[in-house]
Amino acid sequence: MFDKILIANRGEIAVRIIRACREMGIKTVAVYSEADRDCLHTLLADEAICIGPAPSTQSYLNMERILTATVAMKADAIHPGFGFLSENARFAELCEKCNITFIGPSADIINKMGNKSEARKTMMEAGVPVVPGGKEAVHEVEEARLVAEKIGYPVMIKASSGGGGKGMRISRGPEDFDANFQNAQMESIKGFSDDTMYIEKYIEKPRHIEFQIMADKLGNVVHLGERDCSIQRRHQKVLEESPSAAISEELRKKMGETAVQAAKAVGYENAGTIEFLLDKHKNFYFMEMNTRIQVEHPVTELVSGLDLIKEQIRVAAGEPLSVSQEDVKITGHAIECRINAENPEKNFMPCPGLITNVHVPGGNGVRVDTHIYNDYRVPANYDSMLMKLIVHGKNRTEAIAKMRSALGELIIEGIETNVDFQFDILSHEAYQDGDIDTDFIPKYFAEYVR
Amino acid sequence: MFDKILIANRGEIAVRIIRACREMGIKTVAVYSEADRDCLHTLLADEAICIGPAPSTQSYLNMERILTATVAMKADAIHPGFGFLSENARFAELCEKCNITFIGPSADIINKMGNKSEARKTMMEAGVPVVPGGKEAVHEVEEARLVAEKIGYPVMIKASSGGGGKGMRISRGPEDFDANFQNAQMESIKGFSDDTMYIEKYIEKPRHIEFQIMADKLGNVVHLGERDCSIQRRHQKVLEESPSAAISEELRKKMGETAVQAAKAVGYENAGTIEFLLDKHKNFYFMEMNTRIQVEHPVTELVSGLDLIKEQIRVAAGEPLSVSQEDVKITGHAIECRINAENPEKNFMPCPGLITNVHVPGGNGVRVDTHIYNDYRVPANYDSMLMKLIVHGKNRTEAIAKMRSALGELIIEGIETNVDFQFDILSHEAYQDGDIDTDFIPKYFAEYVR
Repeated sequence: MFDKILIANRGEIAVRIIRACREMGIKTVAVYSEADRDCLHTLLADEAICIGPAPSTQSYLNMERILTATVAMKADAIHPGFGFLSENARFAELCEKCNITFIGPSADIINKMGNKSEARKTMMEAGVPVVPGGKEAVHEVEEARLVAEKIGYPVMIKASSGGGGKGMRISRGPEDFDANFQNAQMESIKGFSDDTMYIEKYIEKPRHIEFQIMADKLGNVVHLGERDCSIQRRHQKVLEESPSAAISEELRKKMGETAVQAAKAVGYENAGTIEFLLDKHKNFYFMEMNTRIQVEHPVTELVSGLDLIKEQIRVAAGEPLSVSQEDVKITGHAIECRINAENPEKNFMPCPGLITNVHVPGGNGVRVDTHIYNDYRVPANYDSMLMKLIVHGKNRTEAIAKMRSALGELIIEGIETNVDFQFDILSHEAYQDGDIDTDFIPKYFAEYVR
Repeated sequence: MFDKILIANRGEIAVRIIRACREMGIKTVAVYSEADRDCLHTLLADEAICIGPAPSTQSYLNMERILTATVAMKADAIHPGFGFLSENARFAELCEKCNITFIGPSADIINKMGNKSEARKTMMEAGVPVVPGGKEAVHEVEEARLVAEKIGYPVMIKASSGGGGKGMRISRGPEDFDANFQNAQMESIKGFSDDTMYIEKYIEKPRHIEFQIMADKLGNVVHLGERDCSIQRRHQKVLEESPSAAISEELRKKMGETAVQAAKAVGYENAGTIEFLLDKHKNFYFMEMNTRIQVEHPVTELVSGLDLIKEQIRVAAGEPLSVSQEDVKITGHAIECRINAENPEKNFMPCPGLITNVHVPGGNGVRVDTHIYNDYRVPANYDSMLMKLIVHGKNRTEAIAKMRSALGELIIEGIETNVDFQFDILSHEAYQDGDIDTDFIPKYFAEYVR
């Protein structure tokens, strides 16, 4: 087992990883930017090292500085968390070269799955259903328009390197195609230095259903059921739950087996998520694979009883999975709300600043993952997520009631948050009926989503 | 189901009950003393009513005021929590007369189990092993000394109405018997207006093992496994866990069946706990039955997955138990630390006062039940318990690691607490080895227990 792990991340997920390491008896090193001297992850780790100024390119995205810190602090592994360098194949490769264990899959797999066109091809070869169209990468608008016409509108225009909703546009016909394509491509060039795009059939009002995969170095792969992440704003997840109200035991088995088969086909290792679109007729299509732990992993932890971060660390150290597929039992229902420093009344504008008072809910089945505390100043440089509030109930109805109760108790003073917005989602009849798809927020909360 | 429940309690347990009601869609009424205007339970309930000055006899123990409040607020049931009126048979009787459901067993059962001599007799008749001796109630020291000599020293002198360590003394021989008897009896007269005592064999270094019982009005009774509450200071529980490191699957079955049989013998209803002493040879003896929810109920909730407060409410409303004995599965290991406003360096003197800053731990498997918050002033009038910190791990080792990590993160500023003392207990080799009995604290922490 590792002696010391460096956590190449910040905030809530860094705190989450530090806790797992501490419980496993593994020493921890936090890295922090100049803006994060007072962040909880910096304070909580056994050791902490400043790696540069606030802009991520100069700190959390700076591979050289992070690797230098790892060597200097004598850590033998790096946990990348999510975001930042977590899906950077070159970073995984450099770790390997430095004889440091990257807690995640190999550079080769990250590469394969990070490139959306190639991932799609790989999945098709593995027998996984994919969204019709978009077999080929396109660069020019004329070429792309021809592809769109062949597939039939509406189509989704996607940046090959995209993620988190960036570089994505829907086109409903030739009249809006060119503008949407050019905007999406511009975003991709700006965000990912990559003009490679592809076009696929747009599935109307799908659910976003993803399967959690865990794989060890010995070839064992299990899935831990699905998460329903259909509640999104601009392709950004807002609220996630497990299991999905739309998935029967039979469909779970089918989709889960497909996910495992896909992971096995690429020789996958460590934690990963296979994202599907599920249409109204319960057809599912591979969307993408995330080769890292995800923000919403706690809902899977609560219904499966597994600690995914510990499992990641164990399999990275060469240990076998702690469970077989038959051992995996999904119990009850879990919901996660992402609590963000943002103002829903002002188009969800991020609202960093000084938190003057925090009071978190507690009690049976309530979990809080956060890096904030009284008098913590939220820096303007990073993601606006402050907290993940997660509940576990015996069924969906109880979980909803518990989350509404918990949100009602949560107090964050000094800055604006989306707590009331989350409460409104959970109080909506359609949500309570389980009648959700990715169009839920634009449809029912149009006044917020300008 | 009830429309509105009045919670005849304060602090953490009142908050716990309010949350359960809210999740069940039941309206809540808090009662509060003049010292508890700002207590979280007062702030959190749908409605709150002041029932008198700080001394409990004028508020939380004042049956008339509480019943008047219940009628005035149109509540149809009362949850008594623990302590205060929770084991007061007369209160249960008055509720019944006022046509208000008392969430707990009937007055008759409370009476029967509240009187220790009678409870003992009842249990013997039901075939439950009891501690040798003490068949008869005694009032005079001479009579008591004869009983002690018949049983053989060491003996335990116990007040029939006692509880929480009050009215209890050990006598190791005739030379110290009279003084101990008189002190214990004095305590009993002062605390419970009752001079009835009994004498039983003192079991050396026993474990305190208790079984959680849940029974409905239809005669169904289940046990939810045991709790090991051997870590005590002056007969007051400090830290509790489930399952016990001393109980094999076989012994659990045997003791559990005995507990269920005892509950059935008295026609028990609602939540209850049967406390046993377990000696080194794994002989167990009935000690007492608590006819209410207990402080340490969360450890059972975490390992059984059941919500005991909701279950209490449901069975009080006439619903059947939500589980049968075969459904009950004990998963993983849970530990609870009672966090008190007290100074372990000064003989655990209570330390009420202003809490200037609270930061609670969170993350996977960490539960916090509390009524405190930033700038809350802990009144001097009540029990010093501030918080229950509870963790759930896949086994005892993980649970200990998790609790140590969580205690390390817990910050309560402004007043003294026993957080470090709890950390020291969890860090002790004997505790980690599961080598505990009720003598653990006096033996290993003698410097604290003067």
